[in-house]
Amino acid sequence: MQSGDPSYEEDKFQVRKLEISDKSKGFIELLQQLSVFDFVSDKQFEEQFQELSSYGDDHLVCVIEDHCSGKIVATGSMLIEKKFLRNCGKVGHIEDVVVDASARGMQLGKKIIGFLTDHAQAMGCYKVILDCSLDNKGFYEKCGFKQKEIQMTMYFV
Amino acid sequence: MQSGDPSYEEDKFQVRKLEISDKSKGFIELLQQLSVFDFVSDKQFEEQFQELSSYGDDHLVCVIEDHCSGKIVATGSMLIEKKFLRNCGKVGHIEDVVVDASARGMQLGKKIIGFLTDHAQAMGCYKVILDCSLDNKGFYEKCGFKQKEIQMTMYFV
Repeated sequence: MQSGDPSYEEDKFQVRKLEISDKSKGFIELLQQLSVFDFVSDKQFEEQFQELSSYGDDHLVCVIEDHCSGKIVATGSMLIEKKFLRNCGKVGHIEDVVVDASARGMQLGKKIIGFLTDHAQAMGCYKVILDCSLDNKGFYEKCGFKQKEIQMTMYFV
Repeated sequence: MQSGDPSYEEDKFQVRKLEISDKSKGFIELLQQLSVFDFVSDKQFEEQFQELSSYGDDHLVCVIEDHCSGKIVATGSMLIEKKFLRNCGKVGHIEDVVVDASARGMQLGKKIIGFLTDHAQAMGCYKVILDCSLDNKGFYEKCGFKQKEIQMTMYFV
């Protein structure tokens, strides 16, 4: 298989779960494209990784690694909420989706969203929700989402 | 203290955590004002109650009981999300806020939201978010929230 061959591209950009070694592959720098944040030490990262791992399938961070560059080029997270509503139903919350600026136009965002929504469905969720800017509405519509409500926020810091 | 006395009203409508006995006080019927759902057995309720209790302070369901009627007249939930973003920050998600149709106009919704946002702040969250209809935007603005993004949904059932 060679570059340009669709099956090559398919192999090259597989979605997988976050691994602890992904910090050294630019995972934090990728998230920095989404929001400003400071230095995260290896220790902080490992502790948060273990904390999130302890939730099992109720918390999933997935990534796409570019095997040519060895860099993480896309990521997204899902948190499963358990409710009393809807007969003790479950809702998948999608958070922190970002595709590296250098890797756009290759449908990696769509792959990340597909991976997360498949996970939610496998976990028995009755719906998946996310908040996005108006600019990203069209992208999520292409992924099968529909606009429903508005998001309200209160910042403490 | 008598009805009409502000301190009486204050005592009468305290926010507290959900208790397992609240199912018999109309908790499920209250949630039914928010969304259609079927019968929930005592066993199902107790199992979900224990499941959610196992998350400790990371999942909180609060209620207001009207001590005159013995009924639950308001509720709201908070789920604490742990992120890598924002230096391994935390976000409080408010869900499933409802005030009984017979108990509106007594600021109970505001009490519920205040209780939940105080909890988020005490837990070290950097923000609280929620999704609501345009109709409820004004209420949440009075509670200190600002509109930010839009909510997108995908339903499986």
